[in-house]
Amino acid sequence: MKKIINSPDNYIKEMLEGIYIAHADDLTCVDGDLQVLVTKHKKEGKVGIVTGGGSGHLPLFLGYVGKGMIDGCAVGDVFQSPSVDQAVALTREADSGAGVLYIYGNYNGDIFTFRPAADEVEMEDDIETAEVLGADDVASAGPSAPGEKSTRRGVAGIFFVYKCAGAAADKMLSLEEVKRVAEKASNNVRTMGVALTPCTVPRVGKPSFEIDDDEMEIGMGIHGEPGIRRGKLEPADQIVDEMLEKIVGDLPYENGDEVAVLVNGLGATPLDEQYIVTRRIHQVLEEKGIKVYKYYVGEYATAIEMAGFSISLLKLDDELKEYIDHPVDTPFFKQV
Amino acid sequence: MKKIINSPDNYIKEMLEGIYIAHADDLTCVDGDLQVLVTKHKKEGKVGIVTGGGSGHLPLFLGYVGKGMIDGCAVGDVFQSPSVDQAVALTREADSGAGVLYIYGNYNGDIFTFRPAADEVEMEDDIETAEVLGADDVASAGPSAPGEKSTRRGVAGIFFVYKCAGAAADKMLSLEEVKRVAEKASNNVRTMGVALTPCTVPRVGKPSFEIDDDEMEIGMGIHGEPGIRRGKLEPADQIVDEMLEKIVGDLPYENGDEVAVLVNGLGATPLDEQYIVTRRIHQVLEEKGIKVYKYYVGEYATAIEMAGFSISLLKLDDELKEYIDHPVDTPFFKQV
Repeated sequence: MKKIINSPDNYIKEMLEGIYIAHADDLTCVDGDLQVLVTKHKKEGKVGIVTGGGSGHLPLFLGYVGKGMIDGCAVGDVFQSPSVDQAVALTREADSGAGVLYIYGNYNGDIFTFRPAADEVEMEDDIETAEVLGADDVASAGPSAPGEKSTRRGVAGIFFVYKCAGAAADKMLSLEEVKRVAEKASNNVRTMGVALTPCTVPRVGKPSFEIDDDEMEIGMGIHGEPGIRRGKLEPADQIVDEMLEKIVGDLPYENGDEVAVLVNGLGATPLDEQYIVTRRIHQVLEEKGIKVYKYYVGEYATAIEMAGFSISLLKLDDELKEYIDHPVDTPFFKQV
Repeated sequence: MKKIINSPDNYIKEMLEGIYIAHADDLTCVDGDLQVLVTKHKKEGKVGIVTGGGSGHLPLFLGYVGKGMIDGCAVGDVFQSPSVDQAVALTREADSGAGVLYIYGNYNGDIFTFRPAADEVEMEDDIETAEVLGADDVASAGPSAPGEKSTRRGVAGIFFVYKCAGAAADKMLSLEEVKRVAEKASNNVRTMGVALTPCTVPRVGKPSFEIDDDEMEIGMGIHGEPGIRRGKLEPADQIVDEMLEKIVGDLPYENGDEVAVLVNGLGATPLDEQYIVTRRIHQVLEEKGIKVYKYYVGEYATAIEMAGFSISLLKLDDELKEYIDHPVDTPFFKQV
C-alpha cells in the first residue's frame, strides 16, 4: 500500500483536520465532531440540504458544502456510513425552520443512517424532513422500470442532484418544491463508469480487486463493485461508445433534447484522458441529435486512487437549465 | 501502458479538441492551430500574459488562461516545447498595444522557443515584450545565491507567478510594473516535490523510471527528473517535515511572516492525502512562526498520472496579498 499517510487509523481524522484548516473561512464542524461538517454561510429561512456517506470519494460528498449548493455533510470512515447520531446533529444544525432535505446515494448503510435520523428529528425537534436518493448507475441494475431504480447504486450523478436542488433552495423554494426539483434531477440523470485499476482502503491495506494490466471493467461501481463486463482495454472512443449506448438507451430521448454532461475522473486518470473522452461524447451525442448545454470535466466523485472514469448525462428542461446555471461557491467547486 | 486514449499520435490533438468543446464559451485557438490557445475574453489595453510548455501537466499550463490570470498558451506535445512560430502567433494575438509578458518554466526547450519569438515580434510587429521565468524547485540546485536561480527547474510555483502577475495586469498596470510583480512572486516562491510512482509518456509507452513498491523519491522533478534522495516511504508527517526544512530554509523568514501555500497533487494522489499533508504543513509553519494567509490544495501542476505531491510557499507582502486575493475565472481555476 503506497500512500502518503501517517496511519490508517488516523486517516479520516487527519484528512478532516486538513480540510478545516485549509477552508477555515467556509467550513466548520458541529459540537467538536469533525465528522459533522457544515457551511459557515448558513442562510436563514432556507431549506437545509444535507448529505453524507463514506469517505474516499473527494470531492464527494463534503466538497459540495457551500453557497448555492448544500449545507452540511455527515462524514463516514472510508467507504463506511456515518452514524445516526451524526446525521441527527447535522440535521439540527442545518435546519432554520424551513425543513431539511436529505440527498444521498442509494446504499443500505446510508439508508439505515438517514431514515432513523429523520424519525428522530421529526419526533424530538419537530423538524420537517424529506429525502431524495441518488440511484444513477445504469450498470448496477437492468433497464429502468418502475421499481428498478430502488436497486441502483448512486454514483457521480448525485452531483447534478445537489446542483439543482441547491439552486432551488438558494432561491428560497419550499421543502416540497426543493424535493420535487431534486427528484426530477435524480430521475433524469444516468451514469456509467469504467475502471482500469482497483483502489486500496487504508485500513484494509490491499487492493479491492485484481485486474490484469491489459484489462478494463465496464460498469464498475465507485467502491469497486463488479461491473457488467470485463474485457481487454479498448481505444477510448470504443469505450465511450459502449457506455453511451447504455446511458442514452436508459431514458427516452428525442431529437433536440438537451443534456448536461459530467465526465468524472475516478482518482488517477489524467485530465488529458478525460478530455479525449469528452471529445468523443460530443461526437456521439451530435450524431444522436442530443445537444450539450454544459460540460463538467474533472474529478467530481472519486474512488480513492482508482484509474478510470464515469460519464453522467442529465436530461434537461427549462427549469433544470436555470438551476444548472445558478452560481456556486464552495471550497471544492465554484461556478461563476 | 494503461491509458484511456485512442493512439499516442493523436493524444494532444484529441485532448485539445475536447478542451475547446467543453470550454467553447471561454477558449479559442489562433489560425486554426489547436496548439495556440487564447482566451475569448481579451481585455483591450491590458498587458498580455502568455505562457507555454509541454503537455502532461494539466491544469498547467493552459488551464490558467482566463479572466484575472493569463491570456494564452502555446501547447507543446507531452513534455515537449511548442514551436517558435506558435509562440509568435500567440504573442501577436495576445498583444493589444500594452505589450506582452512571457511567464514560463526554466527549461532550455522553452527558452529556445520564447526568446526567438520575442525577437521576432519586437522586430516585425513592434510588440514590446518581457519575460519572467519560473524557477522554484529547491531540489534542482543548491541553496539560493545570485546566479543559482538560473539553474533551477520551474515547477508548480509558477501558479503563484501567474496569479500575481495576472492580477496586476487585470488592474491595468504597465508592462514594466506587471513584470516587476511577476519577478517578485517568482523570487518569493519555493517548491519541493516527492514522487511515489513514475508516469508514462504516451509515445514512449513505458514508465519514465523505476521505483520499488516501498520507496519514494524526494525532490523529483515534474517530468521525472532525479530528486535529491531516494529512500523507504515514510509517514506523511516525516516527509512534510523534510520538505519544509528545505523550502523554508531557502529564503530568509522572520517571525510573523505570511505565506500562501500550494499543496499540489501530481496526478494520482487522492485529495485525502493532500489534506493530511496540509494539516502537517500548518503545524510546522505555526511552530516556525510563519502565518498562512491562504491555502490552495488540489491538482495544479501534474506529471500525467504520477503519484506524489509538491509543496510551494509564496512569501507575501501587502502588495502580493492584494494580488492573491484578486478574483479569477478560468475554465480550470476559479477564485471568487
